[in-house]
Amino acid sequence: MIIVARKGITAEQLDYIRERVEALGLRTHVSIGENRTIIGCIGDESRLGGVPMLSIPGVDSVHPVMRPYKLAARDFAADRTTRVPVGDRTFGGEACLVAAGPCSVENEGMMAVTGRSVAGFGAALLRGGAFKPRTSPYSFDGLKEKGLEILARVREETGLPVVTEVLDPRDAELIAGYADMLQIGTRNMQNFSLLREVGQLQRPVLLKRGMSATLKDLLLAAEYVMSRGNMQVVLCERGIRTFGGEMRNTFDLAAIPWLKQETHLPVIADPSHAGGRRDLVAPLSFAAVAAGADGLIVEVHPDPETAMSDGDQSLTLDGFGGLMRDLKVFAEAAGRTL
Amino acid sequence: MIIVARKGITAEQLDYIRERVEALGLRTHVSIGENRTIIGCIGDESRLGGVPMLSIPGVDSVHPVMRPYKLAARDFAADRTTRVPVGDRTFGGEACLVAAGPCSVENEGMMAVTGRSVAGFGAALLRGGAFKPRTSPYSFDGLKEKGLEILARVREETGLPVVTEVLDPRDAELIAGYADMLQIGTRNMQNFSLLREVGQLQRPVLLKRGMSATLKDLLLAAEYVMSRGNMQVVLCERGIRTFGGEMRNTFDLAAIPWLKQETHLPVIADPSHAGGRRDLVAPLSFAAVAAGADGLIVEVHPDPETAMSDGDQSLTLDGFGGLMRDLKVFAEAAGRTL
Amino acid sequence: MIIVARKGITAEQLDYIRERVEALGLRTHVSIGENRTIIGCIGDESRLGGVPMLSIPGVDSVHPVMRPYKLAARDFAADRTTRVPVGDRTFGGEACLVAAGPCSVENEGMMAVTGRSVAGFGAALLRGGAFKPRTSPYSFDGLKEKGLEILARVREETGLPVVTEVLDPRDAELIAGYADMLQIGTRNMQNFSLLREVGQLQRPVLLKRGMSATLKDLLLAAEYVMSRGNMQVVLCERGIRTFGGEMRNTFDLAAIPWLKQETHLPVIADPSHAGGRRDLVAPLSFAAVAAGADGLIVEVHPDPETAMSDGDQSLTLDGFGGLMRDLKVFAEAAGRTL
Amino acid sequence: MIIVARKGITAEQLDYIRERVEALGLRTHVSIGENRTIIGCIGDESRLGGVPMLSIPGVDSVHPVMRPYKLAARDFAADRTTRVPVGDRTFGGEACLVAAGPCSVENEGMMAVTGRSVAGFGAALLRGGAFKPRTSPYSFDGLKEKGLEILARVREETGLPVVTEVLDPRDAELIAGYADMLQIGTRNMQNFSLLREVGQLQRPVLLKRGMSATLKDLLLAAEYVMSRGNMQVVLCERGIRTFGGEMRNTFDLAAIPWLKQETHLPVIADPSHAGGRRDLVAPLSFAAVAAGADGLIVEVHPDPETAMSDGDQSLTLDGFGGLMRDLKVFAEAAGRTL
Repeated sequence: MIIVARKGITAEQLDYIRERVEALGLRTHVSIGENRTIIGCIGDESRLGGVPMLSIPGVDSVHPVMRPYKLAARDFAADRTTRVPVGDRTFGGEACLVAAGPCSVENEGMMAVTGRSVAGFGAALLRGGAFKPRTSPYSFDGLKEKGLEILARVREETGLPVVTEVLDPRDAELIAGYADMLQIGTRNMQNFSLLREVGQLQRPVLLKRGMSATLKDLLLAAEYVMSRGNMQVVLCERGIRTFGGEMRNTFDLAAIPWLKQETHLPVIADPSHAGGRRDLVAPLSFAAVAAGADGLIVEVHPDPETAMSDGDQSLTLDGFGGLMRDLKVFAEAAGRTL
Repeated sequence: MIIVARKGITAEQLDYIRERVEALGLRTHVSIGENRTIIGCIGDESRLGGVPMLSIPGVDSVHPVMRPYKLAARDFAADRTTRVPVGDRTFGGEACLVAAGPCSVENEGMMAVTGRSVAGFGAALLRGGAFKPRTSPYSFDGLKEKGLEILARVREETGLPVVTEVLDPRDAELIAGYADMLQIGTRNMQNFSLLREVGQLQRPVLLKRGMSATLKDLLLAAEYVMSRGNMQVVLCERGIRTFGGEMRNTFDLAAIPWLKQETHLPVIADPSHAGGRRDLVAPLSFAAVAAGADGLIVEVHPDPETAMSDGDQSLTLDGFGGLMRDLKVFAEAAGRTL
Repeated sequence: MIIVARKGITAEQLDYIRERVEALGLRTHVSIGENRTIIGCIGDESRLGGVPMLSIPGVDSVHPVMRPYKLAARDFAADRTTRVPVGDRTFGGEACLVAAGPCSVENEGMMAVTGRSVAGFGAALLRGGAFKPRTSPYSFDGLKEKGLEILARVREETGLPVVTEVLDPRDAELIAGYADMLQIGTRNMQNFSLLREVGQLQRPVLLKRGMSATLKDLLLAAEYVMSRGNMQVVLCERGIRTFGGEMRNTFDLAAIPWLKQETHLPVIADPSHAGGRRDLVAPLSFAAVAAGADGLIVEVHPDPETAMSDGDQSLTLDGFGGLMRDLKVFAEAAGRTL
Repeated sequence: MIIVARKGITAEQLDYIRERVEALGLRTHVSIGENRTIIGCIGDESRLGGVPMLSIPGVDSVHPVMRPYKLAARDFAADRTTRVPVGDRTFGGEACLVAAGPCSVENEGMMAVTGRSVAGFGAALLRGGAFKPRTSPYSFDGLKEKGLEILARVREETGLPVVTEVLDPRDAELIAGYADMLQIGTRNMQNFSLLREVGQLQRPVLLKRGMSATLKDLLLAAEYVMSRGNMQVVLCERGIRTFGGEMRNTFDLAAIPWLKQETHLPVIADPSHAGGRRDLVAPLSFAAVAAGADGLIVEVHPDPETAMSDGDQSLTLDGFGGLMRDLKVFAEAAGRTL
């Protein structure tokens, strides 16, 4: 951490700052300039985390220089992408994995039809929400355990491993009993109780970026899960909230290569929520894979017009087939398989 | 809801749209113009909520015209502010209530000192976190039940009712056993399990706006609590996340008068988190009260320099005394008492 | 336009609204529901543009249904991409065109070296700023006419047409005398005097999106140029300003396919400003082309370490060669040439 | 400036960085830690402005510690607010000055009526646009010089000095011939040609914050004007663009006290554009004055329903009278007069 002192700081004030820092086991290094005095703090910066430096007389500004995450940082894993196996597929390897399925599990019939179809087109996982977070308390919020049972049966038939969302720490174990991968949704990226809970389970976690989360926030959320012992985390960029009114969210594509440099965790994209419109799913998918994404999660519904949620952004079964066919060349261009 | 049809829509497509809408019990009204055809949908718009209208051929855009919240809407309460009693004080009456106290309950001594002091200066409630949400898993996250016990003892001594945060639905009942008011924090504004849980308790709720929540999102979060039977909700503007890098958050002051027109629930402001700096607390407090806020929640610490969290934005005890003295004239100018 | 009336609107108020609208030559269509009354306004909506509808008693909200731009709208050009020839290359055809060169024209030597190099690697245009907008008045702001002369000489040698920025309407003609394409920069996207000025010149315009411009704002800025008679406009997505602090801007990739659907104008991307970092240029370029961009504009410098501006995001000459080589497969995957 | 080196930087790389910095006349100070090496750069930081530090091998991050503005910085003026006289009133003194008038000068009659009325209610300046920036090229864009003549005649009658917007550097002198204060609008805050032009005139400047300008950007824009010799600059907060969709802009109230600490220039607020709705003008005005604003600029129209622009947010004449009456107590509470 670097502390910049106000112009006119007194020698007593400067000494006091150094004492505070050194009392925490760090060393200090003072550079006195004409206009500013700089105090470099050397050692374990995290010990300074809770200290309200700006409250100390003479301090003008404070600059952390260490990354606040450790387990999620790139060099923790000797600079290679962590592999996260789900079923018999693996995130973080050569293949881009595509998870596909409806927003909500609506009934067994539609799930079976969807599962068979997306499996045939090359999807690696089946997605579907049994517990649904909804902005309005009056909206359909999922079939709960009945939905999980349906997912498990469709997995049995299709061989596709299943990813589904956990909303409440009390449901985490139940869901882990059915699902192959646990999704933490956008609205829960900083639900720390939930992050700790899935950190204690031995199930891979799909962690979606919060709507207004910085990439550092996202990595710290992963750190919560990892610090409890579960290192199987896949990150997902799904669009952020900005002034742009034309689309549901703003797809922060550059997050993908930024994260690939900053962390060893696999990174995927959700083109369905990012754009919020069916006709944007294909171009956003191509772009994500071109930018280095390790996979995609895509909403697919056998009859989007009648979908109970997210129908506007769901692909039809045929639409998904077309996407997978067209995506192949982009994956190859990126040196990947599907 | 109003549906705008694409140029060149066919008669069959138009009929189909009308059938879909009318099958849900609404009436339709078609206005055919040279460039656009407009289909007005009359009746209970909420039934159209899940229908993916943009998926239907011929639809160009969709405009909801009803508010999605009912219990939180202004006219639900015959256009007067709902009164939310906490201890022997009341949010939503003539008085602006000020909740004050440290970010975290650190130990009994500092809470007792703070409680006595802020009570003397006219605070109406004591705040203090026993369960703390922290961006990093390595930060101090509160004393838990021991913190609640401390809060209860300081209440006994000072007579100040206590407001404290709930993070996990599993802790809600425990906390309600100690606290007079339950705070739902920024990161949990859309933690729907938690909202439902506090909706079932008979404790007033202080609901803080999410960092990227629109005001409609905030009112829908209140609706979650209210729809479970707990109508005692106080809303809190605490700053949103924008491009502005100079301050911790962007204080959306205009949210206060906007909410006062749109809902019957009391509205308060958190000037400590909004600005993130001690020297901004006073001007933001004056502004909030001038704009019609029903109260404030302010961080105060006997020794901010040693605070375990939020020290940079905490007032000293004397600083809080000064704030209350200066705030008085602004409250009077707004026709309120403190 | 659709006008939604407040609950409890009187018959007189309703009549008054209709009269106001009909006096402007539009027809009205009223749908009376239980909770809301809707007034559809049919005809030339632009006539209602200046009318302060929300000021009229009884009006609750107003929903425009027509796009506010005409010449820039997709159907103006019979649904095909407009071709914008620059030199002997054409934006909007099968080929993705790449403009490359330094942020600023620094001297003749570095421009000549850069021009020869990027021409050899397949660039279609040479970029370089002679008039530079700088956030601080103390920063280097370009060589002015001397820079234009250098650009013209390098064009002569390399055959590459030149694109350079115009900042001041008084310089537009001068710059048009040297340059093949006039760039309107981010900070000037709503400098309406400048837009009108370049609208009167017969030079293609490269219009960069403003930092906080919606896509509708961007299309209206294009409409300014086009409404003066210059239909040769190429749009450029270059990143917007959001809360994200990790990168210089947030690259709004989805703007590319959205614009391709909404307008007939060619759309390109600027991966250098979008990411602000050299190592992000390649992945953002691949993504833009995969998403359907008609081209790129990329900063290249023979010695970025000594660049007078934007050195951190400039590719080296070799780096540009590598980009062009790698980009080729993505262009092919997208059915394009380079 | 502080340079943080990457883990594993070599001695040669470190030496090279120091040489680069020292060659520019600064001194360096190296602190070697276990995880990071920090290079403090002492001296005139502005010389490092153009150097692409991140391009130099071994550099991880760069932290400027000096403010990039000088003339606009608080300590330039010995810590007191600069006084900016306009007519016989002064911004930056004890009185809060209120500028009032219509968005556009529409004709002489409405300006005369408005001028007489707002003068009677205590306005200090008359506002009115003769040159109007409009998002659409098809909207009314002002009466131009005819509008200036009207403003001058109304000034003569009422004694109110006049503030009006300059859009184009070519019009600056003409407008300065009529107006007492030149407004630089939101869209032109970074129109550097225009800033330089008004910097050469001897007329006070009202500089409105850009829609996505940070406060540092705003102060650098002021620096442009001041660096040309015109020190008479008044800053104006008018709302920024964020995700919030309920209001026209997000009023960044905290900008007022932040700026009051950071600069010696007077700071005012525009509650009309900030909220975009007539009924929000009063609460936002009260809040601005409570937070320490040196004045307001308010849109007022004798018949907002027929206004050619911004009618929805314009006060009626009586509404303005009410505002001034109610504002008085808040000004007094803030220790100011009106």
